[in-house]
Formats: sequence, structure tokens, C-alpha cells
Amino acid sequence: MSDDAIARALERATLLAARGPQRGGNPRVGCVLLDDTGQEIGAGWHRGAGTAHAEAAALAASDPARVAGSTAVITLEPCHHTGRTPPCSRALLAAGVRRVIYAAGDPDPRAAGGRAWLAAQGVDVSTAREAGVVPEIVGLAAELTRSWSAAVRRRRPWVLGKTATSLDGRVAAADGTSMWITGAAARAHGHTVRADVDAIVVGTGTLLADDPALTARGADGTPVVDQPLRVVLGRRAVPEAAAVRQGPGPWLHLATQDIAAALDHLWERGARRVLIEGGPTVLGAALRAGLVDELHSYLAPVLLGAGQPAVPDLGIGTLRDGLRWQRTETYHLGEDILITARRLEGAH
Amino acid sequence: MSDDAIARALERATLLAARGPQRGGNPRVGCVLLDDTGQEIGAGWHRGAGTAHAEAAALAASDPARVAGSTAVITLEPCHHTGRTPPCSRALLAAGVRRVIYAAGDPDPRAAGGRAWLAAQGVDVSTAREAGVVPEIVGLAAELTRSWSAAVRRRRPWVLGKTATSLDGRVAAADGTSMWITGAAARAHGHTVRADVDAIVVGTGTLLADDPALTARGADGTPVVDQPLRVVLGRRAVPEAAAVRQGPGPWLHLATQDIAAALDHLWERGARRVLIEGGPTVLGAALRAGLVDELHSYLAPVLLGAGQPAVPDLGIGTLRDGLRWQRTETYHLGEDILITARRLEGAH
Ligand SMILES: NC(=O)c1ccc[n+]([C@@H]2O[C@H](COP(=O)([O-])OP(=O)(O)OC[C@H]3O[C@@H](n4cnc5c(N)ncnc54)[C@H](OP(=O)(O)O)[C@@H]3O)[C@@H](O)[C@H]2O)c1
Ligand SMILES: NC(=O)c1ccc[n+]([C@@H]2O[C@H](COP(=O)([O-])OP(=O)(O)OC[C@H]3O[C@@H](n4cnc5c(N)ncnc54)[C@H](OP(=O)(O)O)[C@@H]3O)[C@@H](O)[C@H]2O)c1
Repeated sequence: MSDDAIARALERATLLAARGPQRGGNPRVGCVLLDDTGQEIGAGWHRGAGTAHAEAAALAASDPARVAGSTAVITLEPCHHTGRTPPCSRALLAAGVRRVIYAAGDPDPRAAGGRAWLAAQGVDVSTAREAGVVPEIVGLAAELTRSWSAAVRRRRPWVLGKTATSLDGRVAAADGTSMWITGAAARAHGHTVRADVDAIVVGTGTLLADDPALTARGADGTPVVDQPLRVVLGRRAVPEAAAVRQGPGPWLHLATQDIAAALDHLWERGARRVLIEGGPTVLGAALRAGLVDELHSYLAPVLLGAGQPAVPDLGIGTLRDGLRWQRTETYHLGEDILITARRLEGAH
Repeated sequence: MSDDAIARALERATLLAARGPQRGGNPRVGCVLLDDTGQEIGAGWHRGAGTAHAEAAALAASDPARVAGSTAVITLEPCHHTGRTPPCSRALLAAGVRRVIYAAGDPDPRAAGGRAWLAAQGVDVSTAREAGVVPEIVGLAAELTRSWSAAVRRRRPWVLGKTATSLDGRVAAADGTSMWITGAAARAHGHTVRADVDAIVVGTGTLLADDPALTARGADGTPVVDQPLRVVLGRRAVPEAAAVRQGPGPWLHLATQDIAAALDHLWERGARRVLIEGGPTVLGAALRAGLVDELHSYLAPVLLGAGQPAVPDLGIGTLRDGLRWQRTETYHLGEDILITARRLEGAH
């Protein structure tokens, strides 16, 4: 089979994987099965917790007669762990797949071992890089599991920190008004991000000031089916009438100011991606603790000159000690801009 | 001649005009001469103060024998005023141009009258809109003279306000360090903006804190030929050793805090575009006075959590009263972002 057929299959697996959710605790994975000539036999991707893994989905979508002797091109190393579904390593072998090529290694010590086990059974296993796929294509596939892999490696959720500010960095005006700094398109985007995390965290300050519902809603305002866990962080009580108590979906009060412990707790509950929506105090605490992996900065073209800053004092005295981020994307959302960024490796 | 030939000529005139400088007191104008069949005879644009106007440049670039009976397509109404060069109205008539089509009217009461005078001499004069050119193409041509036209109409310079901030809106860290928040690409872009204004204004606060040179320099660090006027605003003295006193190009101390009076003075000296580079106090005063027309917000992906805000208290108490801007462009400059915006018509 040509290198090119493998590269194209990996690209297709990547696009399929990207259809899957980032929430639910599992990685986004895509799998394409090829015959000897490089022709596609079948393909699949993981659609979320409790559904088939990508490999199983691809096998199910293929003519079993053609699978024997085929090559599986997968965005992630096949798991070798029995969870809610049987291990993919066994499923691939049982179906007669003879060669496995994957982009990213499995960071999960429980699930890993897929490569070694398959190789021991006589399957020809290699990474996409080893199979000659150019780094750009491998990189796109690996990007799919960046946040999940980091979470699993570190055994704590990947944390997104969100701010919605004026161009001069205020999250609220002098009198505390903050609805709405950003426009409808930015807020709609915020809901798509909510729908793609396992939990949303706000501090009691935001809860008491804004009484947010914290549900993930679609463009028409109706809640999406799978709601993230709504988490209120802080010692003060959550009022009986608080909107966060309404449904749909679960909510939780963590009556602590220990953000690392809160994230540990969310990890134990299965959360792999957590969105901190604020306010500034809680976000600041997470930043100081070095717990924010990704920043979503929504910027509205408005100047306020006063009001609460997006980020409180972080103990940074001089420019050199500023928390530097690596920009990833810029979105134009109506009148507003969204800048996303990742923590620089090695930095804060 | 077809409508399409006129539209294409106006697009070409627009592109030519855009090669001209925005500094120097004159508008950016382009002119294309067409024969009866819509074929181009010649074209020209204004290259800056003291050089030929676009119409004269186009006539000079054309075969005189073909100009008689031709059509001039121009981005701006021909001037009818004798300044450093003779009026274009007369030059077009003398050359035998029989039809004149222009995109934007001349806002200058001294220079205007070109249309009426030419029509009185029997020339067929119309706007591009009247000649059937679609609004999008007319709009691009008119955009070239937006800042100049506004300045001339209001008899005060068009003012650009610039900030270079962290993502959380700080222009300096807690200890005052501000060099450099933004990276080399953003700073280089800042120099191209400097090179395209008539004057750069900073307050005595910035002068005394940073001792900026305020010259416009090219990519290699060498000053450009035409330097903007360097203006220091504020009552405190400018130290003998201040870098702003060094060349090349002129500088000026306006020992006042009256920013409107300062802009009037710069207008009288011929400035049509003025860049306020800060600091926050002077920019804030200009914002409060409603004197900032365009905002250049350079944003670095860094969080500081403390330090001087980009904009001081503007007396804005509630979100609804925030100064809203209309975004125009977003630039990716290395790690940084530049958001440009214009004051919303009717707003602040
Ligand atoms: N534009 C935006 O992006 C945005 C987003 C969110 C909020 N906001 C605005 O921000 C304002 C609220 O700000 P805020 O900073 O008070 O809200 P906050 O960060 O939501 O809540 C702060 C409170 O959380 C508790 N807390 C939990 N963990 C903590 C920790 N590690 N360190 C310190 N305190 C911790 C404390 O209360 P206990 O005493 O209960 O422990 C603290 O007072 C509102 O005006 C809201 O509109 C804006
Ligand atoms: N990152 C950036 O974009 C950027 C740009 C520029 C400066 N900065 C930083 O900003 C800091 C300086 O800030 P700043 O606000 O003190 O500087 P500033 O605005 O340059 O200077 C303020 C001074 O200008 C004078 N002034 C002139 N017109 C005034 C008016 N209408 N109202 C009030 N005062 C007026 C006053 O001094 P007199 O008593 O002399 O009249 C005032 O103290 C420095 O740390 C500098 O590094 C950052």
C-alpha cells in the first residue's frame, strides 16, 4: 500500500474523529480500514461515552469478509483495557486486521499496552510517523486528543478559562453591570463550548451577582441533551431560588476555596474537560495555581475605563513574570473577537 | 462605454490611490483615463504633498492626442482650488477630457466646486453611483479618503488612538515595566502607522517614564525619510537629554493639557492625521472629549493581573454607557493581535 493512501486515510480518520464530542470522558478517535490496495473498507468514530469505540464502529461498518488481512489507520493507539466496551486491541485481532497504524500514543496507563499486545500477537503495528506520514498530518490527528491526553497523563481535568471583557480588560462596568458585554454571536459560541465540556465552574461571587443558569443551550435557546455538570465553588450557601439548581442536568456545590481539590473531585467523577467561567477571583486562583491550560478571551469593541478587571492581582510584579500564552485561534463573532490560547509548555 | 469598464477603471484608480501616503495633508486619490471604447489611456495617483495630483499625474502619463474626448474616472471629485498645484478641474478641461466620473465628493469647501465648474464648461460630470457603479466598488474608493474627508469637514485632525496591552488590558506591569509587552512584529507594524501620520502625540508622563524617540523607523531600524511631527503634551518640561529632541524630523512641546487646543494647533500646522500613542492619561482625555476617531489595540497573549490600565477612569458608570467601536480589521502580528476599530457614527 502507498504511503499516500495511509496519509489520506489518517486525514479522513481525523475528520471523522472531530465529529465526536470532547465531553464524556473519552478521547475523540477516528478509524479507517483499508484493504491491500489502499481502498477504504469501512470507517468509524467514537460518538461519546457508552457508545462504540472508533475501531469497533469501523469494524461494524465494514464487510467482515474484507476485514481479514486489512490495515487499520487510527488517530489514537488502540486501547487494551476493558471498560464499558471490550478492548479494541482484541476486537481488531479477532476481526483479522493484520496491520495497525496510529497517530498518537495512548497516555492512559490503564488503557495502554495496545501496541505491545498487538505486536505480540503478530500484528504489524507502527505509528503514523514510523509509517512515513508527514508530521503535519500526524500533528492534526494528535491535536484531537491534546486536552484529553494531557488530562489523563496528569490525572486532572484539562481546564479552560473563559473571560468576556471590554477591549480594556473589564468584565463588568463600575456599577457591576456585565450583561452583556459581548454580543449574541459570542454568547452563542460560549454555549457551544459549554456543551463540549464535562463541567462548568463558577465562584459563589458570580452565582450571587448574576444568578447564571449555567446550562448549555442551542441557538434557539433550548438546552442541549447532554448537559455539563454545573459546579459552584466557594463557602457561601447557594440560595434556594438559584437558577443553577434548576435543570436540566446535574449541579454540585463544592463548599471550598481549594481549586486543586475541586478539580481532583471532578476528575474522580469522570470530568476530563472543565470550563471555569469565572468570576475573576476563581479564575485568578486557578491561574495562580498554574491550573489553567487553555484561555478563551472574548473581547468586545467597547472601552469602559473602570469596573472589575478580568483577572485579579496574580502577584506578578514585573513584565518578565507575566503569564505568557500561545495563541491558537482567532474567531470573529459578530462585533466581537475570540482569542484562544494555550499555556506555553514550561511556562506558568 | 460599458458600465463595467467604468467600474473596473474605478477599482484600478482605487488600487493606485492606495499606494499614496495618508500623511502630508492631502487625500489619497487615483485617476484612470479611458477612451471611447473603455480602453485605458493612462493613469496616475497622488504621491504626497508637493507632487502632482492624481489627475495631473494621469494626464502626464497619457498620450495627449488620445486624451481629447476621453473619460476621467477618479476616486475623488476634482479640486477647483489653486494650492501648491493648479486646480485639476482646469487641467482636465484644458486637456480635452469630455467626461468625468468620481467616487467621493470633495469635503473641502476651499477645493470643492470642481463638479459645478466642469459642468458649467460643458463637461459631462457624474458620481460613480450616478454612472451605475455598484455601491461596494464606490465604497472602497470612498474608504480611501474617509479619515481625510472627516478631518477636512470638521476642521480638526483625524485621531488614531493606540494601545499596546496585555490580554487583560494592562499597558505596564506593576513595577511600571512596559518594554516590551508586544513583540517585534507588532512594534514594526506600529512604525508603519507612525510613518503614515502627520504627528505623533505623547504625554509628558510617557516621555518621562520611557524617553521614547517617537521616530518612524523601517524594518532595519533606520528612520523613514518623511518623519511625522513628534509632539509632547503637558506642562512639565522636556528634559534636555530627551530622545524626542534628537532627529531626524521636527518635534514640538505643547505645554498644555488642553487636547482640543493642541489638535487645533496641529490642524493649523497642516496635520490631518494624528496618532496618540499614549499614555493612558492623554488617551483618556482624548476619549472623554470624544476626539478619538480610530482605535488601534495591540494585544499580547499575556496576563498581568496588575499594572496601569490601558484606559483611565472615563466617568463611565454602567455598561450601557461604554464607548462602543466598530471593528474594522484584525491583524495577526507574530504572537500578537491588532484590532482596529472606528468610533461608531453617532456614538461618543
Ligand atoms: N465577563 C465575564 O467573563 C464574567 C464572568 C464571570 C463573572 N463575571 C463578573 O464577576 C463578578 C463576580 O466576581 P468574583 O470575583 O466575586 O466572582 P467569583 O470568582 O465567581 O467568586 C468569588 C468567590 O468564590 C469563592 N471562592 C472559591 N474559590 C476561591 C478561591 N480559590 N479563592 C478565593 N475565593 C474563592 C469565594 O467566596 P466564598 O466566601 O463563598 O468562598 C469568593 O468570594 C460579577 O460581577 C460577575 O458579573 C464576569
Ligand atoms: N503600552 C502602551 O501602549 C503605552 C503607551 C504609552 C505609555 N505607556 C505607559 O504609560 C505610562 C505613563 O502613563 P501616563 O498616563 O502618566 O502618561 P501620559 O498620558 O503620557 O502623560 C500624562 C501627563 O500628560 C500631561 N497631560 C497632557 N494632557 C493632559 C490632559 N488632557 N489631562 C491630564 N494630563 C495631561 C500631564 O502632565 P503635566 O503635569 O506635564 O501636564 C499628565 O500627567 C508609562 O508607564 C508608559 O510606559 C504605555
